[in-house]
Amino acid sequence: MKHVVILGGGFAGLYAARRLAHAPVRITLADRRNFHLFQPLLYQVASAALNPSDIATPIRSILARQRNVEVILGEAAAIDPAKQQVALGDGSTLAYDYLIVATGATHSYFNHPEWESFAPGLKTIEDALEIRRRVLLAFEAAERETDPEAQKAWLTFVVVGAGPTGVELAGALSEIARQTMIRDFRHIDPASARVILVEGRDRVLPPYPPGLSNKAQHQLEKLGVEVITRGTVTSLDDHEVWIGETRIAARTVLWAAGVQASPLARTLGVPLDRAGRVIVEPDLTIPGHPEVFVVGDLAFVEGVPGVAPAAIQEGTYAAGIIAGNPRTPFQYRDKGSLATIGRAAAVADLGFIKLSGFLAWLAWLTIHIFFLIGFRNRLLVITQWAWAYLTFQRGARLITGAERSEH
Amino acid sequence: MKHVVILGGGFAGLYAARRLAHAPVRITLADRRNFHLFQPLLYQVASAALNPSDIATPIRSILARQRNVEVILGEAAAIDPAKQQVALGDGSTLAYDYLIVATGATHSYFNHPEWESFAPGLKTIEDALEIRRRVLLAFEAAERETDPEAQKAWLTFVVVGAGPTGVELAGALSEIARQTMIRDFRHIDPASARVILVEGRDRVLPPYPPGLSNKAQHQLEKLGVEVITRGTVTSLDDHEVWIGETRIAARTVLWAAGVQASPLARTLGVPLDRAGRVIVEPDLTIPGHPEVFVVGDLAFVEGVPGVAPAAIQEGTYAAGIIAGNPRTPFQYRDKGSLATIGRAAAVADLGFIKLSGFLAWLAWLTIHIFFLIGFRNRLLVITQWAWAYLTFQRGARLITGAERSEH
Repeated sequence: MKHVVILGGGFAGLYAARRLAHAPVRITLADRRNFHLFQPLLYQVASAALNPSDIATPIRSILARQRNVEVILGEAAAIDPAKQQVALGDGSTLAYDYLIVATGATHSYFNHPEWESFAPGLKTIEDALEIRRRVLLAFEAAERETDPEAQKAWLTFVVVGAGPTGVELAGALSEIARQTMIRDFRHIDPASARVILVEGRDRVLPPYPPGLSNKAQHQLEKLGVEVITRGTVTSLDDHEVWIGETRIAARTVLWAAGVQASPLARTLGVPLDRAGRVIVEPDLTIPGHPEVFVVGDLAFVEGVPGVAPAAIQEGTYAAGIIAGNPRTPFQYRDKGSLATIGRAAAVADLGFIKLSGFLAWLAWLTIHIFFLIGFRNRLLVITQWAWAYLTFQRGARLITGAERSEH
Repeated sequence: MKHVVILGGGFAGLYAARRLAHAPVRITLADRRNFHLFQPLLYQVASAALNPSDIATPIRSILARQRNVEVILGEAAAIDPAKQQVALGDGSTLAYDYLIVATGATHSYFNHPEWESFAPGLKTIEDALEIRRRVLLAFEAAERETDPEAQKAWLTFVVVGAGPTGVELAGALSEIARQTMIRDFRHIDPASARVILVEGRDRVLPPYPPGLSNKAQHQLEKLGVEVITRGTVTSLDDHEVWIGETRIAARTVLWAAGVQASPLARTLGVPLDRAGRVIVEPDLTIPGHPEVFVVGDLAFVEGVPGVAPAAIQEGTYAAGIIAGNPRTPFQYRDKGSLATIGRAAAVADLGFIKLSGFLAWLAWLTIHIFFLIGFRNRLLVITQWAWAYLTFQRGARLITGAERSEH
């Protein structure tokens, strides 16, 4: 029986494994984490609305009943296409007949790796909890600060990058300050907090039609977010951010810009794009190796955005070929774009219709809950959202994790 | 207006603050964490059934509407009863007219502090997540291990201390192995895992009547837990535990034994018991300082156990005196004891009636959910429990936090 190795249990890897449920193959899925993460809702953990386990499900449970899959907790260190084997971080190797590489991408700090410690990105559960910790601690610090300038810096939040994640994060931060925290403090008015969203290009949500970008910016501004377009971060540390020649005193900077592919791509020895993604053939394989597929955010395919539906389609396509489909070129079916901005505010471009406001938000809610893996998670997420919607409360406002020495 | 300083936002501190809601005083409550933790359910986070925020609520939200309280995020470093002031860790000081010290206790490693890194205790959210991480990783490691002896060591879990926390943890671990994980692995049978509960005294749940201890032990054994009484840990590391002269090869050891008071007690300059708890006067004050109360787990009061109801009664009593009550000696009203062992298994001694099995479990469930702070938490916890009860699933099986190098 042919052995299919899948690296990565994100959308692409997981849908590839499922597509092969009834194929006469033996599958090994390896991921360095034991859970599948529903990344589109990660900003909800960062903004204290949801818990990690609401948006994450053990890969083993998702695939428990699919008897032809073995799940391994382990990180792939290198791929040797000539020998048809993968080296894992623990020194062991996996030989394959077919390989599906779906290890994804992270943020890019544009050749400033030193910015990462000052401005965490939002790609993992740990990132989300770190952002939550910093945001909540900033309000605590402001409450105790007596110097008005220093207090203002604690109450200034800068989000870099106005793609969907940046937009959602900025909207959520503004809601936290203006609604959730409103009665909690005695010396500060949380509603006086500034949330500044910085985008390098000329509008927010650059991949969307300009009309929706305008609506999104309008809705963000209604929520109190200050939007800066054509703004490039030139310097930052834990006290300030420079946007070109303008200095913003801010103690909390969050990063939602750029794309940098998983370093595993470099071990394939094939052409990569500037972000380190693999430039794949029309059938999503690498040159000269029809048995090696690269899918999801790790693959560069002209015209295909780095979103969950694209990863799902690519993973399913690659698995389909392994299951015997003809190698007709991969075709991306754009089902539309959605971004949420806040409570009952969103924009949607579903192709046949463009929505904004409450209707777009309902569409966003429905689609996201529908795709959440696991009925239990859907139920809990609906309960928590309904509660948050009715009361403006965010239940997960816990400062956990490594404590800084002053506390 | 008199200034009341409360150190600690656990049960004792929080109930003291609430008791003073309508008193003509100004209150400052300081805690090093921003949330109140419902510690009786912490083992449910460790065993992947509940999320941190289900059992923790921001202190600010609990007290948001009580306008005479100010909440400070900060750790008390020292108390100076002569000057009537508290030094905080950040160098600032708080002057008080009345002080309520309720900073609690942690586990004791009995003069073996080096054991802590091998055998984490269960007092904080971080502890619970660390235990969850270790338990889940142990199953993952066993799945990949090929040597049968080494595999058995990964599947052996030792819980030291058979008080309520140890009993609950051992029962939960056994359920995880025998029910939750049953379909997840391909190379190991999770149900072959051994869970060993070690107690130094002659029976489990030593503070309970012997009849209930016997019932609890019986229920534990039905769940597959091996109980060792009169067993003293003489040595341990990350590969083995010695109970007297007996060696147990185990990669996961969890600590639920001993009591060690918060080090803040030492700065008071008053007599302490062996565990470092303050030996208080009949009105819960310290000798010579009728304005300084010590309550909760930090106080040693003959015949009063270190449980949540005692802390609540002590905090309320101290606040009552500040509000004008006479200084009649504190009297503990024992409302009974409850411990849960597993799914539909528990023991209860409510004074007028002793229960075990399903009825005791229902009583335990009702009382714990009733006391959970915040309606939202109650609702979510009920939802998650109902789900777990019906399906044997534990939703929060995520391996998060610091990753070890081999993964």
